[in-house]
Amino acid sequence: MLNEYLEFAKEIALCAGKIMLEYYNDSIDLNYKDDKSVVTLVDKKINSYLIEKVKEKYKDHSVNGEEESYKKDSEYVWVCDPLDGTGMYVNHIPVFVFSLALVHNGEPIVGVVYNANEDKMYSAIKGEGAYCNNVRIHVNDKSLGDLGYRTNIEIFNNDIIDEVSLLKELKSSSTISSIGSVARSCMAIATGNFSCDIFPGTSHGNCDLAASYLIVTEAGGKVTNIYGEQQRYDSDIKGAIITNGISHSKILQKVKKYIKH
Amino acid sequence: MLNEYLEFAKEIALCAGKIMLEYYNDSIDLNYKDDKSVVTLVDKKINSYLIEKVKEKYKDHSVNGEEESYKKDSEYVWVCDPLDGTGMYVNHIPVFVFSLALVHNGEPIVGVVYNANEDKMYSAIKGEGAYCNNVRIHVNDKSLGDLGYRTNIEIFNNDIIDEVSLLKELKSSSTISSIGSVARSCMAIATGNFSCDIFPGTSHGNCDLAASYLIVTEAGGKVTNIYGEQQRYDSDIKGAIITNGISHSKILQKVKKYIKH
Repeated sequence: MLNEYLEFAKEIALCAGKIMLEYYNDSIDLNYKDDKSVVTLVDKKINSYLIEKVKEKYKDHSVNGEEESYKKDSEYVWVCDPLDGTGMYVNHIPVFVFSLALVHNGEPIVGVVYNANEDKMYSAIKGEGAYCNNVRIHVNDKSLGDLGYRTNIEIFNNDIIDEVSLLKELKSSSTISSIGSVARSCMAIATGNFSCDIFPGTSHGNCDLAASYLIVTEAGGKVTNIYGEQQRYDSDIKGAIITNGISHSKILQKVKKYIKH
Repeated sequence: MLNEYLEFAKEIALCAGKIMLEYYNDSIDLNYKDDKSVVTLVDKKINSYLIEKVKEKYKDHSVNGEEESYKKDSEYVWVCDPLDGTGMYVNHIPVFVFSLALVHNGEPIVGVVYNANEDKMYSAIKGEGAYCNNVRIHVNDKSLGDLGYRTNIEIFNNDIIDEVSLLKELKSSSTISSIGSVARSCMAIATGNFSCDIFPGTSHGNCDLAASYLIVTEAGGKVTNIYGEQQRYDSDIKGAIITNGISHSKILQKVKKYIKH
C-alpha cells in the first residue's frame, strides 16, 4: 500500500513539475501574503490539482496544502508545499521544488520532493531508505568545523529565533548560504552535499518540511524542531533543525542560545 | 573593435560553459584556498584555456584570472572569474556562471557573464546597453521597503564589513538571500529581478565583478565600492554595492554603519 501511495505522489509531482516549467520563463502576476512571502498562480494551480486528485483516488484522506486545504476526519493527511522556493522561482533562479508527504497520525510515511528543473525525483518510504531517481542516497559525515560543512539558513522576520545572530556565530565554523528553498536545501543534505539547514518556521512550516523530514531521516540524517524535540507533521512543527545527524547536537547547542522564547 | 572583443569573450564563455556542464554531475576533487573557499579543476581548466586563447589572439594583452594570471605591460587586461559560485557548483546547485571582462585602464569596456546551466549569455559593451541572449535588459525600479525588493548578501569571514549585522537591519525592508554567486545575483539585478547585492570583497574581488559591473551599469543600475566610491577594475575594488540605482544611496547609508575600518 505504501508503494501505491508513493507512485501516486510521484505522478502528482511530475504534473506539478510540468506546471512549474510551463510558467517559469514568464512574467507572472505575484501576490504577497501577510508575512510578505510571495505566492503565484503556479502555487495555487498545483495545490488545487493535488486536492482534485486526492478526492478522486483517496476520498477519505485530508489534504493540508500551503495554499489550500481539504479536511476530512482521517488519520491520513497529504501535506504539500506546491512550490517551495517561490521567491527564487519568480526571479528565474532555478532553486525550487514540489514537496508532498503522506502523514499518518502525525508522522510522514511516504515523501516525495521533485526538482523539475533538473528532473530529480527524491523519495522515501518510512523504513525503506531514501532515493534520488531510484538511486539510494546518504547524508555526509562532516562535523561542524570541517572544510565544506555548509549550513543553509532561511532568513525572514520571525518571532521564534534570532537566526541572524546564530548565523554570525556559525560562520566561523561553517560555510553559510540562504538559497531560498528549505526543501531544496534538505535534498542537498540528503545527498551528502550540504550538512545542515536551520529553518525558523512559519505557520505553514509542516507543509514545507513533511516530505523532507522523511527523506533526510531515511538518508541517515536527523530532523527535530528548534528545541531538539521530535515533531508531529499534522500541527505546528516549531521550526526545524535538519542535519547529517553527526553534527545535530552541536548545532542544537548553538541554536538554543538564540531562541527568543 | 569592441564588437570583436565581445565576440571573442562570448566564444570563450561558450567553451567555459561546456567544461562546466561536462563535470557538473561528477564528484570532483576539491581543494580549499586560504580563505576556505573551494576551487576545482574546472575553475583551473577554464582559467588556463582563457590564457591560452588570449596569448593566441591578443598576445600583448594581460590576463587577470581568479586562479591564474598572465602579465604583460598592457593597458588591456582580461579580468576573469572562471567559475563564480564554485561552492554551489560542487554541491550540484545550478547557481554558477562564467565571468569575463576586458578592462582598459581600470575600466571594464566589454563584459560577458554566461549561465551555462540555462544557456543565458549576458553581455555589454560600454555605452551600448546590456543584453541577455541579445535581448535588451533593464534593472527594476523598486525602492528599499517595496514588496519584492530582494537583497543578496555574500556571507563569509572578512575584515571589511560586518555584513551579518547589516543583514539584520535590512531584513525588515528587504527580502534576503545568499545564493552563493555574486555574478549570478548581479545578472538577476540586471534583468530586473533582484534589486541589490552586497559584496564584502575578497582579494580577487575584481575578478568576480568586472563583467557584472559593466552589465549592471549598462542595464541602468549602479555599482560602487562599499564606501560609495567609483572602482578601478585593475586593483582591489574594496567590496561592492550593486543596486538598481534608485536605492543605491539608501543602501550605502546603511552599509556605512557596518564598515569595520
